[in-house]
Amino acid sequence: MGAQSSTALGVSSVIADHSGITELFAVLAYGEISAFYRLAEEAKLSPTLRGKVAVAKMAAAEMRHFETLESALAERGVDIFDAMAPYVRALDAYHDSTDPSTWLESMVKFYVGDGIAADFYTEIAGALTPEVATVVRDVLAETSHSEFVVEEVRRAVGTSRSERDRLTLWGRRLLGEAITQAQYVMAQRDELTELVLTATGDLNGIAALFERMQASHAERMAVLGI
Amino acid sequence: MGAQSSTALGVSSVIADHSGITELFAVLAYGEISAFYRLAEEAKLSPTLRGKVAVAKMAAAEMRHFETLESALAERGVDIFDAMAPYVRALDAYHDSTDPSTWLESMVKFYVGDGIAADFYTEIAGALTPEVATVVRDVLAETSHSEFVVEEVRRAVGTSRSERDRLTLWGRRLLGEAITQAQYVMAQRDELTELVLTATGDLNGIAALFERMQASHAERMAVLGI
Repeated sequence: MGAQSSTALGVSSVIADHSGITELFAVLAYGEISAFYRLAEEAKLSPTLRGKVAVAKMAAAEMRHFETLESALAERGVDIFDAMAPYVRALDAYHDSTDPSTWLESMVKFYVGDGIAADFYTEIAGALTPEVATVVRDVLAETSHSEFVVEEVRRAVGTSRSERDRLTLWGRRLLGEAITQAQYVMAQRDELTELVLTATGDLNGIAALFERMQASHAERMAVLGI
Repeated sequence: MGAQSSTALGVSSVIADHSGITELFAVLAYGEISAFYRLAEEAKLSPTLRGKVAVAKMAAAEMRHFETLESALAERGVDIFDAMAPYVRALDAYHDSTDPSTWLESMVKFYVGDGIAADFYTEIAGALTPEVATVVRDVLAETSHSEFVVEEVRRAVGTSRSERDRLTLWGRRLLGEAITQAQYVMAQRDELTELVLTATGDLNGIAALFERMQASHAERMAVLGI
């Protein structure tokens, strides 16, 4: 595994000890922790106990994912807290700049924000070794809980045009802020950037990745009815 | 299973369809949800990311327990939200009256408060049918995370006499508030009270149960060094 080989898709496969993999696991892990606390915080906006419980289940799922990453990093001899440190600022900045003011904004953020992250990481995972790709896909696994979000949002926007317009703008802002922070991280963390470059082929590959992410984002917005 | 029979210990075993069992699962379930949100909230007091993660893991464990109870109630044909409703007030009152102002108070509350609840429910579980007792013991299972609490608190009280005195008073207050709310619940919910009476034998049995709980509480305080 000391060299890169071409896959059937023409994408380079990444060597198993690429130091960018540690970085990838670390940014995913801090993403899980920050999502956990945001969900727990935003659940306060829920008008019902049923909503609070649905959000608590989502938050608990994030922690299961965190534990998967913690094990994967431990197997690579890496302390998860040291590894996460460089990503705290960018992820906190994303959450601070997209602080929901209503329960519906919070639900849209969960669904749309998680989707954007999942698209990005899943594309990268496709180019990684099977073991690494399995870890990444496990922690990004869709949960049945997001169905709850779809129902809540569709019901709300179906009865209110102004709510729909407001949430449409909110969804766009989430994509914009996510891309801003992703660019910030890429500019700061050479090893992660190199991993993404290896996974996508070249700078054109990165541009194509971002285009596919925007298309998926539009599909998710349509699912929510916004 | 239509009648009660005596066990080797002389304690009556409880019939499997005792309606108090639904009540017991319900109060446990709301306990898990409220603990989840309290832990997530109190984690903000943690001075380190390591502490925040430890608390998030505890909170996620509460949600796994909640899901066990949700399944057990569903098997009994009961909607968990309807069943929990009568317990919201007492458990919220307990948490409101024991709102920690420091990270250490929060840690002591987690360890001591969970211990008090576990003692109570484990004693009741001993008198239930094996299937019901298994559910109760599963959701009260000690987690390795509490070791984190013991280390943090012991270190703090070992170096500060005033901190130790303050946390000793805090621990006593937690026991007092827990008993106040337990009495409130027992006064309001006949079926649960009847279950506890059946499990403990009679009013003297309840008194003996509370004495054992106080002894266990004192042991836990000693473990924490307070």
